[in-house]
Amino acid sequence: MKVPKAVLEAVLRSPRLVIASHENPDGDALGSSLGLGLALRSLGKQGTVFNNDGVPACYRFLPGSRMVRSAFPKRVRADDLLVLLDCNSAERAGITPLPHMRTLVIDHHKTESSFGDIRWVERSAAATGVLIHALITALRVPITQQIATNLYAAIALDTGTYRYQNTTAEVLRIGAELVDAGAKPHVIAEALYENWSMPRLQLFLKALKTLRIEQGIATMYLTRKAFSESGATSADTENFSNFPRQVSGIEMSVLFRELAPGVWKASLRSKGNCDAAKIAERFSGGGHRNAAGYRTKGPREAVRASLLAACGDALLSSRQHRQSPKR
Amino acid sequence: MKVPKAVLEAVLRSPRLVIASHENPDGDALGSSLGLGLALRSLGKQGTVFNNDGVPACYRFLPGSRMVRSAFPKRVRADDLLVLLDCNSAERAGITPLPHMRTLVIDHHKTESSFGDIRWVERSAAATGVLIHALITALRVPITQQIATNLYAAIALDTGTYRYQNTTAEVLRIGAELVDAGAKPHVIAEALYENWSMPRLQLFLKALKTLRIEQGIATMYLTRKAFSESGATSADTENFSNFPRQVSGIEMSVLFRELAPGVWKASLRSKGNCDAAKIAERFSGGGHRNAAGYRTKGPREAVRASLLAACGDALLSSRQHRQSPKR
Repeated sequence: MKVPKAVLEAVLRSPRLVIASHENPDGDALGSSLGLGLALRSLGKQGTVFNNDGVPACYRFLPGSRMVRSAFPKRVRADDLLVLLDCNSAERAGITPLPHMRTLVIDHHKTESSFGDIRWVERSAAATGVLIHALITALRVPITQQIATNLYAAIALDTGTYRYQNTTAEVLRIGAELVDAGAKPHVIAEALYENWSMPRLQLFLKALKTLRIEQGIATMYLTRKAFSESGATSADTENFSNFPRQVSGIEMSVLFRELAPGVWKASLRSKGNCDAAKIAERFSGGGHRNAAGYRTKGPREAVRASLLAACGDALLSSRQHRQSPKR
Repeated sequence: MKVPKAVLEAVLRSPRLVIASHENPDGDALGSSLGLGLALRSLGKQGTVFNNDGVPACYRFLPGSRMVRSAFPKRVRADDLLVLLDCNSAERAGITPLPHMRTLVIDHHKTESSFGDIRWVERSAAATGVLIHALITALRVPITQQIATNLYAAIALDTGTYRYQNTTAEVLRIGAELVDAGAKPHVIAEALYENWSMPRLQLFLKALKTLRIEQGIATMYLTRKAFSESGATSADTENFSNFPRQVSGIEMSVLFRELAPGVWKASLRSKGNCDAAKIAERFSGGGHRNAAGYRTKGPREAVRASLLAACGDALLSSRQHRQSPKR
């Protein structure tokens, strides 16, 4: 992965940088932010790591996670650099209004945007962590165990630890390099996947009770009551929607989570050619081909019906595509 | 990974080889067998691949899986070589009585054994697939896409696609090399993990209904009735016992599967220092540190109680070990 000259220069020339990532951050957003933050510090720069939602409990194992601030720095100068990671606009990072400062976007998402003075968006990259690994290497900062752990976690999360379609030989080689630098795959995997709390387990069992499968589409929902009864939070639902995707013949799996009475967040996970981002876009949401989301309002059954209708067309076209003899 | 000279010579000198692996084969047993079988063919040798249980439906995606025979060849000569993969004795492969032929064992399991004329047992290897990769490389056989897919699947299964403690930088580099040779990580991961049948899903939901957690030990059971009601088979329970291991604080997770009235197969999965193999050995079973199994008889509650008692000591000593300030 080649780092654009403008990106390298912008980072090298800035003595003070603020690193920000999207709200409701995942392992790629936080691992990339912390990996870069730690690298900037070893270059003697002032690197502030900001996330509007702070660090969810499940990501506090990331080395340096205590340096994440949930309040945007009040005083910034015009020559400070805002580095937006794993998202495409300051709004997605919850930075409004945007202070007067230069902006660099480093991202791998498909979502359209023209925000930023300098933009480095590699849609083919498996994770923003891959780009940060390239940047740190280009900056000639030695990859410490702390940096390695953050980048490994970032890449592990966005490739499903090397299970998704974005897993390339390059990604595996970067993984090997990070293990050489001290990242511990099983410790990271345990922290990412084996840290379910008992409330989370209770919530998952409640979600499974609502599982319905129709025409290759699995749906589950979690009401506010399910949350209060189990004592779990919305962060606890991470990956729930992946579960039914394991079943052969299920091309799309959706979890509806009740945010407020009649307000739902839908998390979509799809397999193969079924494009979750396209379906989410119909409801003004977005994401990747196989993982996307949107917000919607209405009674539970109506919300489910509108999703099934939207999926119908998409799955139909994906099936026709797959059955085409020329593929 | 260095291939012992005796192993290389034995393979090179034998015109006819029979490759066998353990009964109830997993992805490592079959992927290693097929990878080696295909390599031998490209060397112009007669390589027969045998497994007493044939190829379970979930592994039929492995290239060349149709060449696996479930009947041991009737006519073998004294200079034919039996290559036992991923197990330590002919008995584990269901070859009784053993015909008069030379034997080579290639394995990575801990289980004690002295079987075999030539033994290559690397306990530190993540998978038998890692050893077969080294052997094929030493034999200078080009790694085709078919061979790569088999070896990638073998390694993926035994490392939990790079999630277990046995995931080293070397294993990730071999993965990268196999991807370069044509292995498709997401296709293999989908075939390994996302091929649940509807009966399997029903069976899993039934198992979850029996989930009990006590002192860091999760237990579930599946009666013969649960199998008949769901229409699932014992092969469908693969990985079920991994599920509760995801919950923080659970150090051991056990699934009891009823084989015949009052006869149970226990599948143990543990985390960290908790040694599942040691507990299984108390019941005359065996396996690895974090994955083991045994058979036992008795009423359901008695079987569970005896497991909890055996775990009690082991978990206690693992906790003391972990709390030791010198670690």
